[in-house]
Amino acid sequence: MSNKLEPQTYVHGSKLYRKAEKSSDLRALLPLYDNWRAASLAIAGRSDEEIAALVTLLNAYKDAVEPVLDARPNSAQEVLQPSILEEFFEYLFCHLDAEFELELLRRPESGFIDLAFNPRSLHDLVSCPAYTIRRKDHDFVIGSSLELTMTVPGADQSQNDIIVVPAVAIECKRYLERNMLDECSGTADKVKKATPYCLYFVVAEFLKMDDAAPEMSRIDEIYVLRKQRNSERSALNFTPKPIDAALVIDIYRQVQRHLSRVWWNPQSALTTGKAFNVPR
Amino acid sequence: MSNKLEPQTYVHGSKLYRKAEKSSDLRALLPLYDNWRAASLAIAGRSDEEIAALVTLLNAYKDAVEPVLDARPNSAQEVLQPSILEEFFEYLFCHLDAEFELELLRRPESGFIDLAFNPRSLHDLVSCPAYTIRRKDHDFVIGSSLELTMTVPGADQSQNDIIVVPAVAIECKRYLERNMLDECSGTADKVKKATPYCLYFVVAEFLKMDDAAPEMSRIDEIYVLRKQRNSERSALNFTPKPIDAALVIDIYRQVQRHLSRVWWNPQSALTTGKAFNVPR
Repeated sequence: MSNKLEPQTYVHGSKLYRKAEKSSDLRALLPLYDNWRAASLAIAGRSDEEIAALVTLLNAYKDAVEPVLDARPNSAQEVLQPSILEEFFEYLFCHLDAEFELELLRRPESGFIDLAFNPRSLHDLVSCPAYTIRRKDHDFVIGSSLELTMTVPGADQSQNDIIVVPAVAIECKRYLERNMLDECSGTADKVKKATPYCLYFVVAEFLKMDDAAPEMSRIDEIYVLRKQRNSERSALNFTPKPIDAALVIDIYRQVQRHLSRVWWNPQSALTTGKAFNVPR
Repeated sequence: MSNKLEPQTYVHGSKLYRKAEKSSDLRALLPLYDNWRAASLAIAGRSDEEIAALVTLLNAYKDAVEPVLDARPNSAQEVLQPSILEEFFEYLFCHLDAEFELELLRRPESGFIDLAFNPRSLHDLVSCPAYTIRRKDHDFVIGSSLELTMTVPGADQSQNDIIVVPAVAIECKRYLERNMLDECSGTADKVKKATPYCLYFVVAEFLKMDDAAPEMSRIDEIYVLRKQRNSERSALNFTPKPIDAALVIDIYRQVQRHLSRVWWNPQSALTTGKAFNVPR
């Protein structure tokens, strides 16, 4: 990991450059990408105005390249379009290491969900570490990693795994529909059980359902960045509303507040008389 | 651990000897205990007849000492009575190591249930292994243990824990009532999630409810060893039915069968065409 003020993977750019090797349509987009990247990296702080400037650059890049990406066969499988928003979060949050003076993991990652022991037989149970770590892919994670080692006492048999513990996990969707929301709600339950202090956001551009029933879910917030229905996209001469900078500023401030606070204090029952005392 | 043909903790005897230091009533029971222990250890095999002989010794010991134990103030808190059945399982299963040629853990233990990451703050998340292992006390466990080490990559900070993975877990109750069953059902869900190949039995002497609704629970079996209602115990001149040797033989054979078989075979989808192919 590096605590330089820049993204860790450039998830969109790396995909685009790879696919552009075999596509002149995509090669034509590379200068637009390079400009977006350079301009985003040049924004030096994270004031509301600076975040709004990042969003202006995002809207301009998306407006320019998405008609080309969407026209490609198998565009949904290529995931070039959704990776734009993922890379945007890499830019948005690339100053956190400096702000918190920590080396953070800030990229698409698989977060820890569950550990289960599944030996094949009694002999396996006694003689080797037989376990499975379940993970969930997130489109963007702010967190850290740990190395887990499992050893049979008194034996040489051991196994190592890297575990990613998210402090923030963000799912990016072009549009939010019911079955995606149900899947994200299920993920939220698992994330909150395994890593209870992980802030879990779903960020979509368009809405493709009627209501979100927040009481049914442990998702912390669902953002619909264009405040627009997905069905409008099929209209003739459709022009999307721009991604709303105020919502992106809200995401940034929520994350900043979450990362700044004490998540729990084991002494709080004696100092405040409230054993949980979790800020909400 | 030792693979000698004997219990690992003598959970009842160690409690009884400790409490007897301050009680002449209990001191009078020590010869009875010593006889039960010596006679149980002297039974050399685990044929149906030999298991029935162990049960005869158990019934005789319980009949002799329980009137004294039950008459003591705070007898419920002392847990001398329930520890008799726990120690009985130590005798019953003390030949398994020899049978399977493995060193097994066979004693009351806390089994692994869950791992969660709960750093107090972003600083803690990045700088130390901040996690909690949740465990559940079981009255008797057959299993093994693993050592878990969690390290911050690139740092000296690490933490070690011993994790007990049960292949069999048995809860012992004098009588089974609804809220105990609900608790055991909740435990069964957690046990089966964390250690899916653990056989989970609830063993009671008396029944204090009307029905057990097996479809609501992942408990593998509930045994009522005396096949008798708890309410009968309040009758004048109550004499309990003896613990049924046939049920204890059934417990032993079920455990033996479970420990002998292959619990899962990752290749079974290709060898049998059934990906799960779990014996039921």
